[in-house]
Amino acid sequence: MVPDALQRRPLGPLSLNTATVREQWSLAQMIEACARHGISGIAPWRDKLDELGVERAAAMIRSHGLTVTGLCRGGMFPAADAEGRRAAIDDNRRAIDDAATLGARCLILVVGGLPVASRDLAGARAMVRDGIAAVLDHARAVGVPLAIEPLHPMYCADRCCINTLDQALDLCDELDPVRSADQAGGGPAALGVAVDAYHVWWDPGLDAALRRAGPRRLLAYHVCDWLVPTTDLLLDRGMMGDGVIELRALGQKMRDNGYQGFDEVEILSRRWWSVDGDTVLQTLCERHRQHC
Amino acid sequence: MVPDALQRRPLGPLSLNTATVREQWSLAQMIEACARHGISGIAPWRDKLDELGVERAAAMIRSHGLTVTGLCRGGMFPAADAEGRRAAIDDNRRAIDDAATLGARCLILVVGGLPVASRDLAGARAMVRDGIAAVLDHARAVGVPLAIEPLHPMYCADRCCINTLDQALDLCDELDPVRSADQAGGGPAALGVAVDAYHVWWDPGLDAALRRAGPRRLLAYHVCDWLVPTTDLLLDRGMMGDGVIELRALGQKMRDNGYQGFDEVEILSRRWWSVDGDTVLQTLCERHRQHC
Repeated sequence: MVPDALQRRPLGPLSLNTATVREQWSLAQMIEACARHGISGIAPWRDKLDELGVERAAAMIRSHGLTVTGLCRGGMFPAADAEGRRAAIDDNRRAIDDAATLGARCLILVVGGLPVASRDLAGARAMVRDGIAAVLDHARAVGVPLAIEPLHPMYCADRCCINTLDQALDLCDELDPVRSADQAGGGPAALGVAVDAYHVWWDPGLDAALRRAGPRRLLAYHVCDWLVPTTDLLLDRGMMGDGVIELRALGQKMRDNGYQGFDEVEILSRRWWSVDGDTVLQTLCERHRQHC
Repeated sequence: MVPDALQRRPLGPLSLNTATVREQWSLAQMIEACARHGISGIAPWRDKLDELGVERAAAMIRSHGLTVTGLCRGGMFPAADAEGRRAAIDDNRRAIDDAATLGARCLILVVGGLPVASRDLAGARAMVRDGIAAVLDHARAVGVPLAIEPLHPMYCADRCCINTLDQALDLCDELDPVRSADQAGGGPAALGVAVDAYHVWWDPGLDAALRRAGPRRLLAYHVCDWLVPTTDLLLDRGMMGDGVIELRALGQKMRDNGYQGFDEVEILSRRWWSVDGDTVLQTLCERHRQHC
C-alpha cells in the first residue's frame, strides 16, 4: 500500500492555461495571480498575448519566475483554397516566433478540421501533414518543439482532424522519423504531442500510445475532467475531481513514460468562467493535489 | 467516370430505425408507414416493441413484408454490484428471445458506460466482456447474431465504453475467435458489429477495421449525418446530406467488405421529431437516394 499522503502528492508542477480564466483576467493579471498562488507555469493563448504584446509578456513572465509550458496555439492548416493554406502557414511561422520569444517549451498545434463545405476528411488530414511539414524546419531552427494535440473525436469536423494519440504519432513518425532536436542530444524532439486528459481518456489504445511516444515526444500534459452529463461540446469541461477521468493514474502513466514537465490546467467552462478568478486558482491548486 | 444516375443509386435497401420517428408514431403506425413509403426494413427499439407486444409486432411486421434489420437494444452490462450485472444479463437474454421472435437479423448491443460514481474504465470494459460472454451461447442457440455497436467516444462515460470498430472487433476475436454461426456455413457470425456512420466516421483506422471485420462480422449499418455545429451530444444528429460524413463512400466501403444488408436510418434529433412523420420518411427516402 502506498501511504495516503504520498498518493495525494501531485506528480508534476502546476501550470495555468489562460483559457481557464480567460473571461475573468488579462494576461498581466494571470501572471500576477500565478505568482500569488504558487503556480509556477503558465501557458498563454495568443489572444491574451496580443493584448499585452509578446515582448512585454515575455519580460513579465520572466520577472515573475514562471515557466511557459506552451503557447496556444498554432495549427488550423486546412483551408478551402491555396491562399488560405498559405496564410495558415504564415500565421504558424509567427506563432513559432512568438513561442521562441516567450521561451515556451512548445507550440501547441490544434491542427484544424474540414474546410467550409467540405466532406473530404482524408484531404483535410493531408493538408495538416503538409502544413506541419512546411513549418517544421523553421520551428527546429528557432528551437521551438511543435506539439500536435489530438483533440477528442467530437471536434473532428470543426477543430481538429487528428483525434487519437496514435494518429498524432503517425504524423510525427512520418515528418520527423529520427526525433530530431534543435541540437544533438536528448532534449525534446522537434515534433511531438500534447496529451490532454479530456481528449484522450476514452482511448482503448492510450497506454500503448504513451509508451510509443516516449520521453522525447511527450511535450505537454493538459488536465481537466469529463463531466457526466456533458451539456456542451466545447464549454462544459470539468474541474479535476468533478468528472470521471482517472487523472492520477493518467499522470502516473505520463511520468512512467518519461514525461518530466508540468501539469497544465486547461478548463473551458462557462461555469468556471463565472467564478472569481482567485477562487478558481485556489480550487484548481487543491484539486490538483487531491486528484492529479 | 461512373454515370451520374448510377452514382446516385443507393447501395443498399432501406430500413427505418424507430428512434427516427419515436416522438411521432407508435410501432404499428411506423410499420404501416414503412409499407406506404416503400421502406422494406424496420429496426424497433424495445420501448416501442413493448407497446405493441412482441408477438403482435412480429405478426404485423411479417404481414407487411418487412425485414427486421435489428432489435435495439441489448447491452448496458456494467453495474455497480453483482446484482445489477445479473439483472443486465437476464435482460439481455429476454432481448435475445424477443429478437428471435421477430426474426431480427441481429440484436444491437449498446454495451454501457461507467457504473454510477465509478471512474474505473478498464473495469467497465471487463464487465462488458463478461456480460457478452454470459449471453453469447444463448444467442447462438436461438440463432440471433449479437452486433456490438461501437459508440462515438463522447458516449464513453454514460452509454458505451466500446468506442472504435477495432475495439469491438478485439472483443469479437476474444469471445468468438472462430466466427461461429448458429449452423455450419457462411452466414453471419454469432458475434459481430454494427457500424453506425455517426459513431465511426472520424476514425483514422476505419478502413482497416472494415476490412478486418469482413462479411461475417458486418451485421448492420446505420446512417445519419454529423452536423456542424452539433448543439447536443445526443439529440442533434442530422439527416443524410445535412452534415459532413462522406456517406456514399462509407456505404461503398461496407459493401466492398462484404456487407449485404440494409442501410438503416437512425436519427436522434429534436428537430426531426418535431416534423410530421410522413415528411420525415419522404425526406429520408430522397436523401438516401441522393447521399447514400
